[in-house]
Amino acid sequence: MKAFVMEGVGETGITEKTRPEPGPADAILKPTKGLICTSDCHTVHGAIGDREDLTLGHEIVGVVDEVGESVTDFDAGDRVAVGAITPDWHSKAAQDGHPSQSNQALGGWKFANVKDGTFAEYAHVNDADGNLAHIPDDVSDHEAAYTADMMSTGFAAAENADVPVGGRVVVFAQGPVGLMATKGAALQGAGEIIAVETVDARQELAVEYGADHVVDFQEGDPVEQIMELTDGEGVDAAIEALGTDRTLQDCIKVVKPGGTVSNVGYHGDGEFRHIPREEWGVGMAEIDIVTDLCPGGRLRIERLLRLLETGRVDPTHMTTHEFDFTEIEEAFEMMDEKANGIIKPLIHFD
Amino acid sequence: MKAFVMEGVGETGITEKTRPEPGPADAILKPTKGLICTSDCHTVHGAIGDREDLTLGHEIVGVVDEVGESVTDFDAGDRVAVGAITPDWHSKAAQDGHPSQSNQALGGWKFANVKDGTFAEYAHVNDADGNLAHIPDDVSDHEAAYTADMMSTGFAAAENADVPVGGRVVVFAQGPVGLMATKGAALQGAGEIIAVETVDARQELAVEYGADHVVDFQEGDPVEQIMELTDGEGVDAAIEALGTDRTLQDCIKVVKPGGTVSNVGYHGDGEFRHIPREEWGVGMAEIDIVTDLCPGGRLRIERLLRLLETGRVDPTHMTTHEFDFTEIEEAFEMMDEKANGIIKPLIHFD
Amino acid sequence: MKAFVMEGVGETGITEKTRPEPGPADAILKPTKGLICTSDCHTVHGAIGDREDLTLGHEIVGVVDEVGESVTDFDAGDRVAVGAITPDWHSKAAQDGHPSQSNQALGGWKFANVKDGTFAEYAHVNDADGNLAHIPDDVSDHEAAYTADMMSTGFAAAENADVPVGGRVVVFAQGPVGLMATKGAALQGAGEIIAVETVDARQELAVEYGADHVVDFQEGDPVEQIMELTDGEGVDAAIEALGTDRTLQDCIKVVKPGGTVSNVGYHGDGEFRHIPREEWGVGMAEIDIVTDLCPGGRLRIERLLRLLETGRVDPTHMTTHEFDFTEIEEAFEMMDEKANGIIKPLIHFD
Amino acid sequence: MKAFVMEGVGETGITEKTRPEPGPADAILKPTKGLICTSDCHTVHGAIGDREDLTLGHEIVGVVDEVGESVTDFDAGDRVAVGAITPDWHSKAAQDGHPSQSNQALGGWKFANVKDGTFAEYAHVNDADGNLAHIPDDVSDHEAAYTADMMSTGFAAAENADVPVGGRVVVFAQGPVGLMATKGAALQGAGEIIAVETVDARQELAVEYGADHVVDFQEGDPVEQIMELTDGEGVDAAIEALGTDRTLQDCIKVVKPGGTVSNVGYHGDGEFRHIPREEWGVGMAEIDIVTDLCPGGRLRIERLLRLLETGRVDPTHMTTHEFDFTEIEEAFEMMDEKANGIIKPLIHFD
Repeated sequence: MKAFVMEGVGETGITEKTRPEPGPADAILKPTKGLICTSDCHTVHGAIGDREDLTLGHEIVGVVDEVGESVTDFDAGDRVAVGAITPDWHSKAAQDGHPSQSNQALGGWKFANVKDGTFAEYAHVNDADGNLAHIPDDVSDHEAAYTADMMSTGFAAAENADVPVGGRVVVFAQGPVGLMATKGAALQGAGEIIAVETVDARQELAVEYGADHVVDFQEGDPVEQIMELTDGEGVDAAIEALGTDRTLQDCIKVVKPGGTVSNVGYHGDGEFRHIPREEWGVGMAEIDIVTDLCPGGRLRIERLLRLLETGRVDPTHMTTHEFDFTEIEEAFEMMDEKANGIIKPLIHFD
Repeated sequence: MKAFVMEGVGETGITEKTRPEPGPADAILKPTKGLICTSDCHTVHGAIGDREDLTLGHEIVGVVDEVGESVTDFDAGDRVAVGAITPDWHSKAAQDGHPSQSNQALGGWKFANVKDGTFAEYAHVNDADGNLAHIPDDVSDHEAAYTADMMSTGFAAAENADVPVGGRVVVFAQGPVGLMATKGAALQGAGEIIAVETVDARQELAVEYGADHVVDFQEGDPVEQIMELTDGEGVDAAIEALGTDRTLQDCIKVVKPGGTVSNVGYHGDGEFRHIPREEWGVGMAEIDIVTDLCPGGRLRIERLLRLLETGRVDPTHMTTHEFDFTEIEEAFEMMDEKANGIIKPLIHFD
Repeated sequence: MKAFVMEGVGETGITEKTRPEPGPADAILKPTKGLICTSDCHTVHGAIGDREDLTLGHEIVGVVDEVGESVTDFDAGDRVAVGAITPDWHSKAAQDGHPSQSNQALGGWKFANVKDGTFAEYAHVNDADGNLAHIPDDVSDHEAAYTADMMSTGFAAAENADVPVGGRVVVFAQGPVGLMATKGAALQGAGEIIAVETVDARQELAVEYGADHVVDFQEGDPVEQIMELTDGEGVDAAIEALGTDRTLQDCIKVVKPGGTVSNVGYHGDGEFRHIPREEWGVGMAEIDIVTDLCPGGRLRIERLLRLLETGRVDPTHMTTHEFDFTEIEEAFEMMDEKANGIIKPLIHFD
Repeated sequence: MKAFVMEGVGETGITEKTRPEPGPADAILKPTKGLICTSDCHTVHGAIGDREDLTLGHEIVGVVDEVGESVTDFDAGDRVAVGAITPDWHSKAAQDGHPSQSNQALGGWKFANVKDGTFAEYAHVNDADGNLAHIPDDVSDHEAAYTADMMSTGFAAAENADVPVGGRVVVFAQGPVGLMATKGAALQGAGEIIAVETVDARQELAVEYGADHVVDFQEGDPVEQIMELTDGEGVDAAIEALGTDRTLQDCIKVVKPGGTVSNVGYHGDGEFRHIPREEWGVGMAEIDIVTDLCPGGRLRIERLLRLLETGRVDPTHMTTHEFDFTEIEEAFEMMDEKANGIIKPLIHFD
């Protein structure tokens, strides 16, 4: 079968691989639609170390091609979604409420990390009954592909932010995760949502997904702008959806005493992140800093699919480009360079 | 000044009273708009015992007429909202996170209970700095009046229901509190909302406020209908917004193991409420039954006003009738009899 | 192999059975020590329906005899404990934080319910990596056997009770679960623990496990006694560890507004449990009623074993009698009749 | 009256002041016993800026000398404790569950910060009904003085750490707050407590208050020692009770994915605190960093007093020295220099 792989650091290509086989609890999917994630780009640039011919990709939906003997709830031919994170559900971390950390830090992240990813003619899913979800008839494959990571991660940012009904939330960066965090804040009952972004098209989407104000960091210090918008009070919660030291610091600076900083940004470089001591209330202002890795699993994905089924959100407005699987290298390069105003490229496998 | 009072059990009238005086921390308001609540009717029928010339009403907004000497954040002339519940914020219950229970069960409920209510030319508010909130310029008095009880109680029902993002919620009864619970469930990110109601106009409002399905209990057992809608799984959360034994039982019957029953119904009669033992999982199915009394206080009301300011909800669609203060007895009778399709009558004091 | 079985409603006996075989993820244990639970008695009396030659028992520790091919963390010869509840960890309920409810209400309860229990020469455990725990060298089999149900259930009662540090807790009934709930309340930082019990030996153990007061319900209404002990304030949390309508009602009556009723009692009969409407604050006093089924799983059992290893609790003081496996019928009858001051009988399989 | 004051940065002395007068809701206390806190030393060294003749001290108990006209629950002659933090209970932060942050960051901290402290013949307490607590007969003034800050702060560290029953906790530094955090971890049901400390007497007290292991940071990297003690798993929760960059970093390094870092250390210098990026799981390991300022208020203090009344803790073992009020400058200097093995000096005002 054909697979889009990281051949080594900085190198990608389409190669021929053997179709994977399912273990007793596993499934093999035939992808139909996929989305490229910025973290695929990070991986190719060496963020998680070198890999040889590792299949890329973790955001797809597809059709079940084969299931292992102990799988009970899915059969060949079923139309399914699967999370980017596929936890080991019996691990101690999962029993502790942290399935994304199963067995080790970020241990639920298997696709294109510790095993082949999903950008191939066939993809292997561990624990099919625990990690697949049937796609409702009224939900398109295109929509459903957004549940794997963008919706799950973005919404989690807002869920962890402990937003009071009617509270104020700021979301730093309006890439696809940030946009879904903005939507997530709306779905948590935020009364006022401030999006920080400078790119026009992303600003517009932020408003569509629920932002009441857009702060352009090119037009002045975002901290000052946010404090002004909130009459000096600061926000109840700040969401970091970029992964830089600067934005994390800004989150701490704009949160009021007793508020929450919710990080979903991938912090890919540097030895440290910096907590500004005074704005942190010298360690006593009751500002929590919480983090998450994209929640996965059947229940999570089913609930996200339900939000698509009842029309609570349309994530497809983030799809700026479409490609056939044969053109995936071109899509990848465009995503890597954030060229042509790309936000999210859809890949057709079918 | 004129006041609309409960003269005794079953008797109401407009009478002349002395204008109240503020204590050091208090304020006197001049109401501009008010709403009649079904619980005013319960009170007149003797639900909380006999009262003599007790001024009725707990849902108003108005203008500050006078403040006590230690009030710092409000002045005469300010346009303000006030919650139906005005807690003693330094009470031990408030310190414990239960301000509505200050000093005793339901102790934050003062208006038209342990002191005169708000349906008068002037109304007394304890702890002005803690219990008043400025109404933003963009929010009308009519809208703001809904924060006092309907929005606060209805939304609390959903907040307490511990709704997972994308989860399923059922709301029993679509009176004004139930309608706001439906809206509240949407604001908590529910993926599927089922409203139980038989009156056409209320069914329509339920859909407007976010219901995906309406179950008419006149067309069959609502429990069966809900189980069918959820493929036999049951719901993540059930909200009781009526106050009857039957609906509370039905809530327990439709919640899945691990789910939550959130009660905001006022249970006004009978010695007991009944938990159906088997559906409750013989006491081991991890179904929580939680309750609340309308949250009050400045912070709560400010946050609810913010939701009005940013257009997240328009509660005025529940206003079916309007009256001048001089006509309040007529409004009260209509509310008492639920005549003419009344949902919520607005009273003009100005 | 020999097994102690329920032959039918009201009938028990020791019979010969085929040794179970492990599935790929399972293990077969050879029990060394076991404890008889009152719920075994309920089962024999038909509480969960008729069964034919069902092996009884769910509280044991033992040695691993064989593991399935996909088990990675346990081997033959390992000394292990196992919870009474052995969840399906990838079920949707487990993903939702309710593993004891996997697949259906109480679905994690498999031993002596939907499959053979543990009172046999060999016992089958589903998902060995998820449900077994190694016993530390310093912990005896006798001690470890208490983690399966008594410690897990009793402590859960206190964990769910949301006890504030220094708060007041009452525990109704001081059977082995109630005694561990008393100890659990102490481990949650309760400032004052009131145990309700009439049997001398149990009263003494209650004090040993942390009770500051013992209320004897034979010497007057326990509600009155508790209200007097708390200067009329009531308690922050009430734990129901018996399973009767009366004690559940009493819990609601003694909890203060904003408090919690935590049920772990098995409510085995009657169509309803009754909530006293007025003491429940007419549905608005913010009294939560929560329930649980004994938490299981490797992480839970490891943590309970750690409490034994560091000497935080010695549950063996509850062991009033000891029997060889060959004498188990006698032990069972004594437990069924609560004869000879029995609290908990230890069974030696080795 | 005589008062022990900070005359300016680095300067202290006993001076004559006018006895304070109570506002309507306030009380004047006559201190009987007090404790000097390291933060008094920080203050004198300029940590919160310059002050002129500011009375020092925030840990005392005493007798009510006078109350304002609206105080209902306390009278002259009552023996009372008062928290170091005396919140404005009607402030928005208090309504939001963060009373210590009332009106501004750390705004509940009034004594020896924004008004005179307690080391004087008379001390002023705002909101007497909300901030005083009666001392039970069985509790000595000496014991009760520890509720004001040491017990409240130390226990809060453990409460915020979200310790699972049987979980592992490490507490960095065993000064009086750290020692109470160790005790607090035991009161939260920790299964294994590791104390980090190098001073012998503090190590011994740590064991008395519940530590199972003591790690001496002079004998090797504490992170390595802790990882070895936990078989490489790390701890469920790490408590920072010192206020240095190094210990905060170490907390993050020893917490396992999904765990909690709970800070109560006062971070008094430096522009930043540093989060080690990799051990923080690149922002995705679900490690929460939470902080607190000593909880105050009547309910809190009453609950802490109850723990003393029932003998759950004896904090007086931390008292290494005793002085009369006339000798307070000597006590202060000894505390400032941590001379003579001082842990906590008790001041007799009576």
